[in-house]
Amino acid sequence: MSPKAIVVFSGGVDSTTCIAIAQSQGYECIALSFNYSQRHVIEVEVAKKVAAHFGVEHRVFTLPSGQFGGSALTDKNIAVPQYSGSKDIPVTYVPARNTMFLAIALGLAEVSKAHHIFLGINTIDYSHYPDCRPEYLEAFQNLANLATKAGVEGEKFTIHAPLIHLTKAEIIKLGTKLGVDYGMTFSCYEPDENARACGQCDSCTFRKKGFEEAGVEDPTVYY
Amino acid sequence: MSPKAIVVFSGGVDSTTCIAIAQSQGYECIALSFNYSQRHVIEVEVAKKVAAHFGVEHRVFTLPSGQFGGSALTDKNIAVPQYSGSKDIPVTYVPARNTMFLAIALGLAEVSKAHHIFLGINTIDYSHYPDCRPEYLEAFQNLANLATKAGVEGEKFTIHAPLIHLTKAEIIKLGTKLGVDYGMTFSCYEPDENARACGQCDSCTFRKKGFEEAGVEDPTVYY
Repeated sequence: MSPKAIVVFSGGVDSTTCIAIAQSQGYECIALSFNYSQRHVIEVEVAKKVAAHFGVEHRVFTLPSGQFGGSALTDKNIAVPQYSGSKDIPVTYVPARNTMFLAIALGLAEVSKAHHIFLGINTIDYSHYPDCRPEYLEAFQNLANLATKAGVEGEKFTIHAPLIHLTKAEIIKLGTKLGVDYGMTFSCYEPDENARACGQCDSCTFRKKGFEEAGVEDPTVYY
Repeated sequence: MSPKAIVVFSGGVDSTTCIAIAQSQGYECIALSFNYSQRHVIEVEVAKKVAAHFGVEHRVFTLPSGQFGGSALTDKNIAVPQYSGSKDIPVTYVPARNTMFLAIALGLAEVSKAHHIFLGINTIDYSHYPDCRPEYLEAFQNLANLATKAGVEGEKFTIHAPLIHLTKAEIIKLGTKLGVDYGMTFSCYEPDENARACGQCDSCTFRKKGFEEAGVEDPTVYY
């Protein structure tokens, strides 16, 4: 029987590549997406289609983070900035987002008898979002094994971040090799009403540069 | 200005005592309750009244744990057992519950500029729920300071569990000294439709024994 894995899944380049990697390693995946009051629901719609394409179970849960705001991604009063190359933690940082995602993923994992959780974070975010660093992941894995019945009874949880040391270009090359159709994926923080990407936000900037550096044609439709 | 604290709050004996303790230590409290698809909503109604009694802000968030079940507290197909004195992790264990609670509390704390989180766990639960142990809390505090902008920028989070080494009787004695009216609080896992307690579940059993041992009259109404 294939081992089960929960893949935290937004329908973007990174988490889609994560599903392809987990499948190639023999995991039976459950893709887990969140409504966390992000600015647009396109993300969840795209995630649904991509999960169906991979033939994996897809769960969508709602988080209350929009009720406390504090980020350009969850509070419409805070503008999404254009890419600036700054090394500060940006206003698109969502307080405790990955901790909320992983906490729910852990609950679902334990109930589903999955002992693996995949998270598509990578080093490009390293100096920006604190909850994308290797030491953060290690701390969460330690917590997961103290927090749960499964962990205490010896069925250890492993948090996988197979992209953590890859650049966006390396991720795109790897995914392309695994057959990922990036035309299905979606990354923009501020799309227009036709789900076209802005090409200007941090997320678009990293994605665009990734395709360029990978020498892979960028399938993204920009407005 | 008083330091701010988030108090994870169910309206039961322990978390109500936690608010009294935090207030007595000079914290401005925000009480945080969850709809996590527990069997009855009385808990949240009681929490609302008790928070108002203490004059603290009360936030109620909904968690998706009912959508994955796996516990007698969130899945009506699993019966709530009567107290048996077993040292096994009981079926009332909710997978990753405290991790989900603390993750949301952490997000709210960071947005609210609160650097203290109070959790009313205690040693009575020690050998039962894995996410009520001191080493679990320590792991979460470590995670919190790696996960957040505030933590990385040096405004450390502290997770307080002032009841962790107290018995239920000691908690009730302490709260009584601080003026807590336990007649307002509610603990039962399986109340009747008039919000009367069963007196038989683990939670009722520990509560009842606590009042007895503390020599404080039990104000609970049982059916």
